[in-house]
Amino acid sequence: MAVMRMGYMHVKVTDLAEAKNHYANTVGLYPTLEEDGKVYFKGWDEWDHHSIVIEEGGVGYVRCGFKAEKPEDVADIEAKAQAKGYSVARFSAGSRPEVGDGITVTLPSGHEVDIYSHMTAYGTEVGTHNPDAFPRHMVGIGAPRLDHALLWVPNVAESREFFTDCVGMWATEEVRTTLDDDAHTIATWLTIGESNHDIALLEAPESKIHHFAFEMRGWADVGHAADIMAMDDVPIDIGPTRHGITRGQTIYFFDPSGNRNETFSGGYRCFRDRPMVVWTPDQLGKAIFYHARELNERFLTVAT
Amino acid sequence: MAVMRMGYMHVKVTDLAEAKNHYANTVGLYPTLEEDGKVYFKGWDEWDHHSIVIEEGGVGYVRCGFKAEKPEDVADIEAKAQAKGYSVARFSAGSRPEVGDGITVTLPSGHEVDIYSHMTAYGTEVGTHNPDAFPRHMVGIGAPRLDHALLWVPNVAESREFFTDCVGMWATEEVRTTLDDDAHTIATWLTIGESNHDIALLEAPESKIHHFAFEMRGWADVGHAADIMAMDDVPIDIGPTRHGITRGQTIYFFDPSGNRNETFSGGYRCFRDRPMVVWTPDQLGKAIFYHARELNERFLTVAT
Amino acid sequence: MAVMRMGYMHVKVTDLAEAKNHYANTVGLYPTLEEDGKVYFKGWDEWDHHSIVIEEGGVGYVRCGFKAEKPEDVADIEAKAQAKGYSVARFSAGSRPEVGDGITVTLPSGHEVDIYSHMTAYGTEVGTHNPDAFPRHMVGIGAPRLDHALLWVPNVAESREFFTDCVGMWATEEVRTTLDDDAHTIATWLTIGESNHDIALLEAPESKIHHFAFEMRGWADVGHAADIMAMDDVPIDIGPTRHGITRGQTIYFFDPSGNRNETFSGGYRCFRDRPMVVWTPDQLGKAIFYHARELNERFLTVAT
Amino acid sequence: MAVMRMGYMHVKVTDLAEAKNHYANTVGLYPTLEEDGKVYFKGWDEWDHHSIVIEEGGVGYVRCGFKAEKPEDVADIEAKAQAKGYSVARFSAGSRPEVGDGITVTLPSGHEVDIYSHMTAYGTEVGTHNPDAFPRHMVGIGAPRLDHALLWVPNVAESREFFTDCVGMWATEEVRTTLDDDAHTIATWLTIGESNHDIALLEAPESKIHHFAFEMRGWADVGHAADIMAMDDVPIDIGPTRHGITRGQTIYFFDPSGNRNETFSGGYRCFRDRPMVVWTPDQLGKAIFYHARELNERFLTVAT
Repeated sequence: MAVMRMGYMHVKVTDLAEAKNHYANTVGLYPTLEEDGKVYFKGWDEWDHHSIVIEEGGVGYVRCGFKAEKPEDVADIEAKAQAKGYSVARFSAGSRPEVGDGITVTLPSGHEVDIYSHMTAYGTEVGTHNPDAFPRHMVGIGAPRLDHALLWVPNVAESREFFTDCVGMWATEEVRTTLDDDAHTIATWLTIGESNHDIALLEAPESKIHHFAFEMRGWADVGHAADIMAMDDVPIDIGPTRHGITRGQTIYFFDPSGNRNETFSGGYRCFRDRPMVVWTPDQLGKAIFYHARELNERFLTVAT
Repeated sequence: MAVMRMGYMHVKVTDLAEAKNHYANTVGLYPTLEEDGKVYFKGWDEWDHHSIVIEEGGVGYVRCGFKAEKPEDVADIEAKAQAKGYSVARFSAGSRPEVGDGITVTLPSGHEVDIYSHMTAYGTEVGTHNPDAFPRHMVGIGAPRLDHALLWVPNVAESREFFTDCVGMWATEEVRTTLDDDAHTIATWLTIGESNHDIALLEAPESKIHHFAFEMRGWADVGHAADIMAMDDVPIDIGPTRHGITRGQTIYFFDPSGNRNETFSGGYRCFRDRPMVVWTPDQLGKAIFYHARELNERFLTVAT
Repeated sequence: MAVMRMGYMHVKVTDLAEAKNHYANTVGLYPTLEEDGKVYFKGWDEWDHHSIVIEEGGVGYVRCGFKAEKPEDVADIEAKAQAKGYSVARFSAGSRPEVGDGITVTLPSGHEVDIYSHMTAYGTEVGTHNPDAFPRHMVGIGAPRLDHALLWVPNVAESREFFTDCVGMWATEEVRTTLDDDAHTIATWLTIGESNHDIALLEAPESKIHHFAFEMRGWADVGHAADIMAMDDVPIDIGPTRHGITRGQTIYFFDPSGNRNETFSGGYRCFRDRPMVVWTPDQLGKAIFYHARELNERFLTVAT
Repeated sequence: MAVMRMGYMHVKVTDLAEAKNHYANTVGLYPTLEEDGKVYFKGWDEWDHHSIVIEEGGVGYVRCGFKAEKPEDVADIEAKAQAKGYSVARFSAGSRPEVGDGITVTLPSGHEVDIYSHMTAYGTEVGTHNPDAFPRHMVGIGAPRLDHALLWVPNVAESREFFTDCVGMWATEEVRTTLDDDAHTIATWLTIGESNHDIALLEAPESKIHHFAFEMRGWADVGHAADIMAMDDVPIDIGPTRHGITRGQTIYFFDPSGNRNETFSGGYRCFRDRPMVVWTPDQLGKAIFYHARELNERFLTVAT
């Protein structure tokens, strides 16, 4: 396996203190480092140093990183990406705090994607010896980990090729114009392992980030998260509801700078031989929001 | 205690077969009688003959009925209602199928409300001897019982007086223009026992029914109900979500004729000495839809 | 209605500090008073001054109190109890901290039961003006309120008579030797309102308290409570599981002195016309523990 | 990745009709083939022809099969197993109904394990085009898929080596005599992907199967499953509860022949760089049953 998971998401925020409060006290992440106008966070069930980076000065996507198992995997992806003609640059250990050597690939959409195989170990509160099931004093919605992101890209097929051919992912679900083999792909959900998606790509007029998601463990936790958001005055885009695509149970909400976050629970266990699900535009409402069965304007037009 | 609960809700539907399918197969009620263009239903956890009556020929409220414990309670309410100047008429056993003698009070809003103390016993599938916790083969969303209704009335105080002074209910929560004692009441949630509301009244330009609700037992069941509604193509107004008022977890949805139904779970245990909750218009969004914190147009404008 | 609910439970504990830690930090109650070797607590959804009293010096039942709506209700119960020949004594406001005038009835079993109509108002953290659905920072299992208790009595019928004939309760479920009308009642679940039980009585060789229960709102909260108990090293007797009787979802556990506590969720909405459920000894396992369908030794032999 | 998942579990049952009723009507599997004294089943979320085989004539483990992605993966495992000295035999397509060519490895414990890369596609009720989130009419507990098994083996390290060195699995959690590097491994949880375990091995005096597990999606479904088991008179070993190991929420129960089944929900998302959790014997109760924190006799002594 070339990479293991999305290891970090780095976004800009307009006000660092306000954003820090959101990710620490509402989302419930642990701040692990604050320097140079950036704050680094990890979830309670993540052992690497960080999975979220927020940086003051605007809004929206800076980059995301995928963690490979070994340096050889990074080199392999580098070679494949160069062979495919993608723009690839190396970065050195320490150029991103607590991250080892790696490469940055610039997708045709313009999104920068890091691939790396080392991050400083930080550990978890419950530890690895006779651990409790979760920390005794959970904060806010208690997000255990970063789960995935959805990028807006002008051309899905072009960016998908990097993730499939160089990184080793495959599509678990797609929205296509028709069921025909030569149908145009409007959106794709790509996985590297057994979850529904480590990254998803949606055709859009601009290259932006639509949302990044934190894992939740079940519908009860999704409901509790919505209650906490109400108490903390966090704007909810939609939810709690279910996606038709991935079957995940979800809330879309916004950080104080307007970056869309998601709490995502569930989906199903994916395998390479599982037949891909195809959604067609006539059922797009149900595909995105299974209960309401209609898209809202914000979902279609707001990204950062 | 003068009455025990809302015993039945009787509404008109435009197409009886379509509506019967909705209440039987999606809501999961048991049809117990079909005659004269009407279908009668009960929930799996109700032992009286019926709690829902649908009647072909239009849409909207026909009447609801409250069940009193004893004939004396009906007589007592009759006397109090007459003393207050409400319009009261008697009906005889059998004039409503399987219902005993009773009275019909016409509220100032024009809504007819029956009070009765006898309905033919029907029993439940699980029975009363070493019963299982629920029927082994649940249908649709498996609503156990009718819970409450919300009526649109032109003047809340006028109709409330019947329920408080004649029937013995009291308000658990209200929306008022201000916190002052002489504030105008925009809406009231009235209970006769320990649930948040057996009936609620909302000030509106017309006398209609906004919705009637089926009890659900928990957030998991509410989520499951939303999934079933998606599969059965039932239009969802909003939800799953939580109400600020009553704390209930909820879905508003429509029957095929456009009557709004609700699945309502939770709330808290009410008592006569519990301090009444007051909501003010600045927080009305949160009061109605705790997560979205804003009202939707449909909620404010659609009733039948 | 003569009384509204069980208002307080007063038990002895062997070590006050240890017990205070249990009820405050694990059960999540708010300590409201500490004096004379006693600690008083209320749940987050209770507005009266206290619902639990622990007193150092032993273990087990001291007394419980039922709150009536008005002083006249107390007087009415006093008269009925005296007429029935029960031992009745008056107590004055202040003799129990923050409690008004009342009476103490000694049941044939020897259990003392207080009836009172006033307790100092304390209020809740969420308040009554545009309140949040629950406190933002919940402690431990976050029990909202005292729910009910189960007493061991030598003769169920004798003690039941006080609750039915003097207090106005009725039985929602019973365990009887047979289905015959003249069957012997082994246990009874008595309610004054719409919950399954405000008090239950079980035939036993000694007069003790088997358990007292805190309300939980749903299976997810019951599961979470079990996790917190594991982290806090609280001995669990049984659960999470469901009762056949009442359908409630439950955990039995012990405070540090060995008094059995329960977290109880669910049940169904009760009404005076609901047919009583009867359980017979051949299905007693299923009646008590619906999943395991067998009683454990501890349940049958341990009370305090 | 060498294999993708445990593809099937084949066990003996004493009475085929009784067992078929259990797996079809209580567990909710779809029978897909019945021939030669065997019944084949699949879960609603499985697309291959079968995942469970029951065979009349005794009780206990016959074999399990792991599905590899490609024939080359099977060949690779064959070569590695032979090099390690394991007993390996080939089987031809059709020798197991609907299964392609494969190999059978006999573990040092004596357990036979199949590796194959093809099974006839069967499809699912919801399909792959705009699918619903689950079948509209779920049967029994509605198990979506086979999840994992726990084998009793005389020597954990010996059998583990096949799964790690030949199949490519790694341990996510272990029970070891101490925290020292040279500690003896009492039990191991082995994964090939992102779930906690595809197979687990427990040191025991005999070579048997302790249980095989069906996936559940959340605590609410686990609770519902327990209710259905009560109604269907299925013996529950323990649960609903949580495991300390894997954090999974669980019920152990028995099929009519005494084979132990499990409904398993949750766990956490595993990755190769996640630090392994080690449990030590002093906390074995909490490791196995997180809530009760003590092992029951049956868990330790019953296997088939």
